[in-house]
Amino acid sequence: MKISELSRRSGVSIPTIKYYLRDGLLPQGQLTTAANQADYGEEHLRRLRLIRTLVGVRRLSVSAVKEILGAITEEGDLHQIFGIVTDARPAMHQQKASEEEAAGGETAGVHDARRLITEMGWEVSPETAAIRTLGDVLDALADVDSDIDWQSLLPYARLTDRISELDVRQMNGASGLLELAERAVLVSVLLEPALLALRRLAQEDKSARLFSGGADGGDAA
Amino acid sequence: MKISELSRRSGVSIPTIKYYLRDGLLPQGQLTTAANQADYGEEHLRRLRLIRTLVGVRRLSVSAVKEILGAITEEGDLHQIFGIVTDARPAMHQQKASEEEAAGGETAGVHDARRLITEMGWEVSPETAAIRTLGDVLDALADVDSDIDWQSLLPYARLTDRISELDVRQMNGASGLLELAERAVLVSVLLEPALLALRRLAQEDKSARLFSGGADGGDAA
Repeated sequence: MKISELSRRSGVSIPTIKYYLRDGLLPQGQLTTAANQADYGEEHLRRLRLIRTLVGVRRLSVSAVKEILGAITEEGDLHQIFGIVTDARPAMHQQKASEEEAAGGETAGVHDARRLITEMGWEVSPETAAIRTLGDVLDALADVDSDIDWQSLLPYARLTDRISELDVRQMNGASGLLELAERAVLVSVLLEPALLALRRLAQEDKSARLFSGGADGGDAA
Repeated sequence: MKISELSRRSGVSIPTIKYYLRDGLLPQGQLTTAANQADYGEEHLRRLRLIRTLVGVRRLSVSAVKEILGAITEEGDLHQIFGIVTDARPAMHQQKASEEEAAGGETAGVHDARRLITEMGWEVSPETAAIRTLGDVLDALADVDSDIDWQSLLPYARLTDRISELDVRQMNGASGLLELAERAVLVSVLLEPALLALRRLAQEDKSARLFSGGADGGDAA
């Protein structure tokens, strides 16, 4: 197909496609006899859709996308790709993370996060970014003297474990690594706000049933 | 207690406490015989901790916090307080939301979000912000031609429903509306990154078990 059709079918503008071609994110098309024209295939379309998802949905920088695309073509292990795609941090968070890492040392919260992971029997890399996130939350809870600790989070961990089983099931039926990587981004990233929204709705429902009517409201002025 | 002790026990600096006093977020203390000194009680401490949580954790503006504190003292219905606390949007998101509202009309995604809510039997206000969030995600999924639709989200909705039951259970044992409101903020907001982190960890574990070893990697170049 011509670049104009590639643009129409991918939803990416021609100038942006040209920028991706120059930057090496997208491989050059087959040269045709017509001057200044190249022919693009389905693989270009699929790759372009993945780039659009990574940049638009996952909000990654072009250089991070380049790294991910490199990993997808060089390696054949979906687990690694899933990890690269989900663990890569949006450009704006990278500085903060490296500042924290430079500060060194492990907080009590991170220590507790590791205890939770052991208790759940989860096999994860000790470097996974989510361990620090979980540790930060536990530190913040302790900081406001909350009685919510890592053990209170265990029932949550068991339910999110079942959510992750749904997540990996969404990967079924994908053909080829590019499509698998695209699904990994959608499932891991785009579903995040959806899950939080579902929780808010369910909370509103439960809260209405439990607390409405002011029955609990009489004990404070 | 003196303002210095209030500062030490709340973790809020004296200049910030004075600012909250001037702004009416914190009621004045009892005047003592000592010149320029006031006496503060446990209620001041609790209120200050709630302000700190709303501003620091929930990232609300001082005027939004004022509104919430007003609702807590005027109304006695915990369900309403839970709704006010969780539905209030951080200052930076407010403009975007009103722009969307000004644009009017309901997208296909929002329509589908309402179908999901009906299917779940959730009793929620039709104006709840989370409906629009869920709709935006469904629109974004359709935009990238994903086959994940509102029906694929039903199993997720059932698990988040159980998560919300854990959430309301965390409210038990709180004494007084100020503490209940504080817990509502912690549970609804501070646990959000923790839940997403738990999901990532569980995904990594599942992905390792299912996809590792390159067995699935042979079907694409």
